[in-house]
Amino acid sequence: MNINDPESYLESLRTLERNVYVLGERCANTVDNPLVRPSANAVAETYEVGAEPEAASLLFTTSHLSGREISRFTHIHQSTDDLVDKVLMQRLLDRRTATCFQRCVGMDGFNALYSVTHECDEAHGTPYHARLKDYLEWVQDSNVVVEGAMTDVKGDRSLRPGEQLDPDMFLHLVDRTPEGIVVRGAKAHQTCALNSHEILVMPTTAMREGEEEFAVSFAVPADTKGITFVLGRQPSDTRKMEGSQLDLGNRYGSQEALVIFDDVFVPSERVFMCGETDQSGKVVERFASFHRQSYGGCKVGVGDVLIGAAQLAADYQGSSKASHVRDKITEMVHLNETLFCCGIACSAQGRATEAGNYEVEPLLANICKLNVTRFPF
Amino acid sequence: MNINDPESYLESLRTLERNVYVLGERCANTVDNPLVRPSANAVAETYEVGAEPEAASLLFTTSHLSGREISRFTHIHQSTDDLVDKVLMQRLLDRRTATCFQRCVGMDGFNALYSVTHECDEAHGTPYHARLKDYLEWVQDSNVVVEGAMTDVKGDRSLRPGEQLDPDMFLHLVDRTPEGIVVRGAKAHQTCALNSHEILVMPTTAMREGEEEFAVSFAVPADTKGITFVLGRQPSDTRKMEGSQLDLGNRYGSQEALVIFDDVFVPSERVFMCGETDQSGKVVERFASFHRQSYGGCKVGVGDVLIGAAQLAADYQGSSKASHVRDKITEMVHLNETLFCCGIACSAQGRATEAGNYEVEPLLANICKLNVTRFPF
Amino acid sequence: MNINDPESYLESLRTLERNVYVLGERCANTVDNPLVRPSANAVAETYEVGAEPEAASLLFTTSHLSGREISRFTHIHQSTDDLVDKVLMQRLLDRRTATCFQRCVGMDGFNALYSVTHECDEAHGTPYHARLKDYLEWVQDSNVVVEGAMTDVKGDRSLRPGEQLDPDMFLHLVDRTPEGIVVRGAKAHQTCALNSHEILVMPTTAMREGEEEFAVSFAVPADTKGITFVLGRQPSDTRKMEGSQLDLGNRYGSQEALVIFDDVFVPSERVFMCGETDQSGKVVERFASFHRQSYGGCKVGVGDVLIGAAQLAADYQGSSKASHVRDKITEMVHLNETLFCCGIACSAQGRATEAGNYEVEPLLANICKLNVTRFPF
Amino acid sequence: MNINDPESYLESLRTLERNVYVLGERCANTVDNPLVRPSANAVAETYEVGAEPEAASLLFTTSHLSGREISRFTHIHQSTDDLVDKVLMQRLLDRRTATCFQRCVGMDGFNALYSVTHECDEAHGTPYHARLKDYLEWVQDSNVVVEGAMTDVKGDRSLRPGEQLDPDMFLHLVDRTPEGIVVRGAKAHQTCALNSHEILVMPTTAMREGEEEFAVSFAVPADTKGITFVLGRQPSDTRKMEGSQLDLGNRYGSQEALVIFDDVFVPSERVFMCGETDQSGKVVERFASFHRQSYGGCKVGVGDVLIGAAQLAADYQGSSKASHVRDKITEMVHLNETLFCCGIACSAQGRATEAGNYEVEPLLANICKLNVTRFPF
Repeated sequence: MNINDPESYLESLRTLERNVYVLGERCANTVDNPLVRPSANAVAETYEVGAEPEAASLLFTTSHLSGREISRFTHIHQSTDDLVDKVLMQRLLDRRTATCFQRCVGMDGFNALYSVTHECDEAHGTPYHARLKDYLEWVQDSNVVVEGAMTDVKGDRSLRPGEQLDPDMFLHLVDRTPEGIVVRGAKAHQTCALNSHEILVMPTTAMREGEEEFAVSFAVPADTKGITFVLGRQPSDTRKMEGSQLDLGNRYGSQEALVIFDDVFVPSERVFMCGETDQSGKVVERFASFHRQSYGGCKVGVGDVLIGAAQLAADYQGSSKASHVRDKITEMVHLNETLFCCGIACSAQGRATEAGNYEVEPLLANICKLNVTRFPF
Repeated sequence: MNINDPESYLESLRTLERNVYVLGERCANTVDNPLVRPSANAVAETYEVGAEPEAASLLFTTSHLSGREISRFTHIHQSTDDLVDKVLMQRLLDRRTATCFQRCVGMDGFNALYSVTHECDEAHGTPYHARLKDYLEWVQDSNVVVEGAMTDVKGDRSLRPGEQLDPDMFLHLVDRTPEGIVVRGAKAHQTCALNSHEILVMPTTAMREGEEEFAVSFAVPADTKGITFVLGRQPSDTRKMEGSQLDLGNRYGSQEALVIFDDVFVPSERVFMCGETDQSGKVVERFASFHRQSYGGCKVGVGDVLIGAAQLAADYQGSSKASHVRDKITEMVHLNETLFCCGIACSAQGRATEAGNYEVEPLLANICKLNVTRFPF
Repeated sequence: MNINDPESYLESLRTLERNVYVLGERCANTVDNPLVRPSANAVAETYEVGAEPEAASLLFTTSHLSGREISRFTHIHQSTDDLVDKVLMQRLLDRRTATCFQRCVGMDGFNALYSVTHECDEAHGTPYHARLKDYLEWVQDSNVVVEGAMTDVKGDRSLRPGEQLDPDMFLHLVDRTPEGIVVRGAKAHQTCALNSHEILVMPTTAMREGEEEFAVSFAVPADTKGITFVLGRQPSDTRKMEGSQLDLGNRYGSQEALVIFDDVFVPSERVFMCGETDQSGKVVERFASFHRQSYGGCKVGVGDVLIGAAQLAADYQGSSKASHVRDKITEMVHLNETLFCCGIACSAQGRATEAGNYEVEPLLANICKLNVTRFPF
Repeated sequence: MNINDPESYLESLRTLERNVYVLGERCANTVDNPLVRPSANAVAETYEVGAEPEAASLLFTTSHLSGREISRFTHIHQSTDDLVDKVLMQRLLDRRTATCFQRCVGMDGFNALYSVTHECDEAHGTPYHARLKDYLEWVQDSNVVVEGAMTDVKGDRSLRPGEQLDPDMFLHLVDRTPEGIVVRGAKAHQTCALNSHEILVMPTTAMREGEEEFAVSFAVPADTKGITFVLGRQPSDTRKMEGSQLDLGNRYGSQEALVIFDDVFVPSERVFMCGETDQSGKVVERFASFHRQSYGGCKVGVGDVLIGAAQLAADYQGSSKASHVRDKITEMVHLNETLFCCGIACSAQGRATEAGNYEVEPLLANICKLNVTRFPF
């Protein structure tokens, strides 16, 4: 597989033999399902160079592993410039779609694992870092979409993973074989689930001694035996089925799904953590930092579209010169650009890890996320 | 007609021969249409004494016109206690439905017209106040639902009513006959439209000299010839058609409609303003004050339900003792009770008009409305 | 003593033989000290009928104890109208002074004790309620200023009163005699301290079993042996000593002092609680509710002056029509009137206690206080 | 003059023969005046390498004019790294003083003039850019403090400079001679005034055709004939005269002064604009952008101290584990780091001007300033 344009991306999804449920029924071809298609279209934009002058240099870069040109969504950041370019790419893409283009979760996932597997190998003599590099080189060359899967179902938030009434509230190891491991559980609210070729699983929280079975990380193809996807409901989701040409949600949209792992086998070469509880918290923190940085780009791009739409609506109804309307537009710009500043700042103040890749400044990335919560649109 | 319980209310709607469009098709019986029924159920609650100890004294009172017991929704407020009781009734009812019960707009409309018609007659020798009292006594005895219709389509907000490209952007007089008047235009976003027996039309803004044709107020039955209703779309509206028992929106919900007046005849005895431009602004201001007061009750009741639901969700997932969750619940209570304070204060500081009825303190009512905009739920 | 105008009030203070320290030195006559005088002037306004038409009916009322006309600052609220009038009086007075007029703390204190002493007597057979009424009748007739003293020095906030390293961090009982009690400790940040004839002491928090020595309430004259006052420092306090005629702070201002009780004897007839720990929390809660209500009047009056000053400054510099200036003035009005709404609402929704006096609705009073913290001026 | 440490800086000020008024009296030596000294101490810190490991590389850099090592406060930014380092230097210094160290206004002033004089010369054939470079090289080598003076007294904000009743409300040209120009007017609220050797004057707003006399920019020594300084009053300013060792404001503090120009002669080689109205707006915009960026460093350093002080106070009184205290500290960190993000982002996204120096991204710099207004400490 070597996906290099929107159409080959969509076609590649059509042939995936996954076990998917949409509105209570099996759905063999999610790409052509009106409820899912708008979100596939949003992912497809990541394969489109586009007309923006800066797009090519933002969407594509050079692999530090192979030296070949790759999608930035499969890249391991090599400098603070790379970190800044990630944010600029996100803002550019979201100005096209005004919705989540979904590939950041996977990108943020393997950038986090890149340094943690290195440190894990140093500490425990494990072979994870080389495995991850092999996997990444394949991902870069094939240019598949990788879903980053972190959020467990969790159950009772006041109890630890091992204390839950239902033992499958947190994804966990159920068996080891000479060839690999077997896992059970589920990952919830997976933004990219139905539009991915691969699933990259990470632990959802810092595990403690005695919680080894929950400290697992691995990658599997989306059509692996034992995996079931259930599309979640969203406000006005069935509006997409009405087929209106006026409704922009029919062109680009989002989805999220529950991904159930029912005794799924993972071959050893795709296992990146298995029981090293002291490393699990670092995966969560670094992934979270990268993902908080992401908001400084993607949500800002959505904001750009919303601000433009608000201004357009004001122009249409003749109210764009009213001072209260101008104040509101100004306030939207203020909040949006503040978020962008946080995305840029945590990138520009980033630093090298021991593995050689670059990570964002974690406090400023956290500030970025906090400012999303002040963002009323 | 004498409607005195939810079932007779719903039955009365079934027999109304109105011209209604729902999702692009004629709909003869809106009550039993799943898109509209939840909103009719919400209105029906205003006919239900209910189990709350204070409900009977809040929902019912004594008419100052007839001395008979009437629904408070048809009452002209006779004291600051009446104004406070209105707010308490609204909070109580919205705790039942968590959605708009729709009868306030009509109530606020004829309470505003009550004093303005009195002052108009003083100034112009018109016969409107007595007409309004006759109409009100019939409304009180029959206990019909009256929609208050104020918001015009408006077109270009930077132009006056008479300057619009389309002369029907503001509802206006097109003819006078010995028996009455003929009007054309439309009222938009009418919350109670499909669940009302009567429509009480008011001007949407203060009219100036030369804008006499737009300074009109009157009441007509909803099934009057020339009136067409078009149900508006809402987020997730068709979810109601899926029939889930789990979805509370199937029990209570809201609607809004566009109400088109295509050369509608209004008999003289139902005309309450016709060309007195100097009175039109007062109708808008007083109606707005009453309606801003309303938010201090109805939205607070919705808030009560949302706060309870948020607390319940936190209890379910074991997070109710987390300090950030407690802070958010506390913040919701703070904003909700602040709004209630404004509703109570503008009522308790209310005052008698020249007509003898009571109106709220307008500055404090305006503050009430402003606090709704700080209300993030 | 029967104080009935500003001048006799100021004169009465001159003759008080108190032990006062100002800027590190003994000060025999605080009234004529430029650091203290502006705050005495503010209290003096409570003795001035004033030119406002509603002032007389707000500042004065009829005693339920004697039937005589008294200052409302010495009144026990007999109705929700009384509660509302308290708020209106506070707003009126603070429009005159733009600073704290200091008598509310005492008024709120004895209104809280009025119902608690009644309930304490019911529960414990104590004689406090009759004592308090005797004291109040004297206060009403003499029209003295009573400081309400609640806030202890507290020390380490993570420790209980009896656990502090320094046993005097909370005011406490040190001895009982046949004629009365002896107390030691200090009350901090006392707003009215240097301008009062009497000090009414209350516990600062709900005491538990074993903390009987801290559950004390009583009244003593300000010139009682063993009491020392130390004036606190404030920003720009010595500016008052520069004597500028331009500086409005020289006319009205505030002060606060530390009041030290060094083995002070209190005669039994002035003791209103001594060891009844189960009653102490109620004093704090009810006092706090009354005092939170107070903010809905006094701070709103200060707000009125600040809003007017801001508008005047804008007029002076020619910026009053700029939209950002108008927005800020509007925002000030919004926050100020919201606070007023809370003060009115908790009063209008007040209720009778078992003792027959009226208390405010405590949740809404708490909301009132919370809105002060949103008040950026 | 070559100032290279705090003591030589303070000594250099003692010998300046300026015309200064403090509290209504002539003051020959402002350095040793207790009202002014704390602010001189804050400036002196800019001459102190300090113990922080990164301080030397932040406080000092290499001149692009001479190749010699200079204070960054006299530097023309040569890259986005320079822009970022400016912000880092400001945060570092304000962590030492918790008050304004005053040299940024001058630095921001000549960085703005650097590109504008270049563009002015291109457009008008003027000789300003070379003059400015000569001046800058002298400033860099002597390491004097330069006050940037922009804000005029302004008078009636609704009138243009030439329409004011008092013609001196905006600083303006009164005469031209073969050797230079003569100016009259005043600059208000000058933060660095009493601690500067030089004054760099810029226009306060974009001037229009016909307002040539107000489009003037120049530099003069602070002890030039005709210049008078009047120290402004500040809250608690005389507290500094009490000499307490406990009061940290006696060590570092701020000042601001009115600087009056009473027919001051400026030699031609120090004139950088004289009548080129089309260039005046650019000076204001670019200066404002640099100065808005400055807030992302200096105010953040003040914030660091305040956050630390708040945490220390909480520790002292035993309340640091209370959730509402932790929330407030967290909120302070959030707002402070958000501001820092804006300072970093507008720097990292900076760009080269035609003159070759670097300026910040103006929209993001403006966002930085807006976030200062959300900063409640």
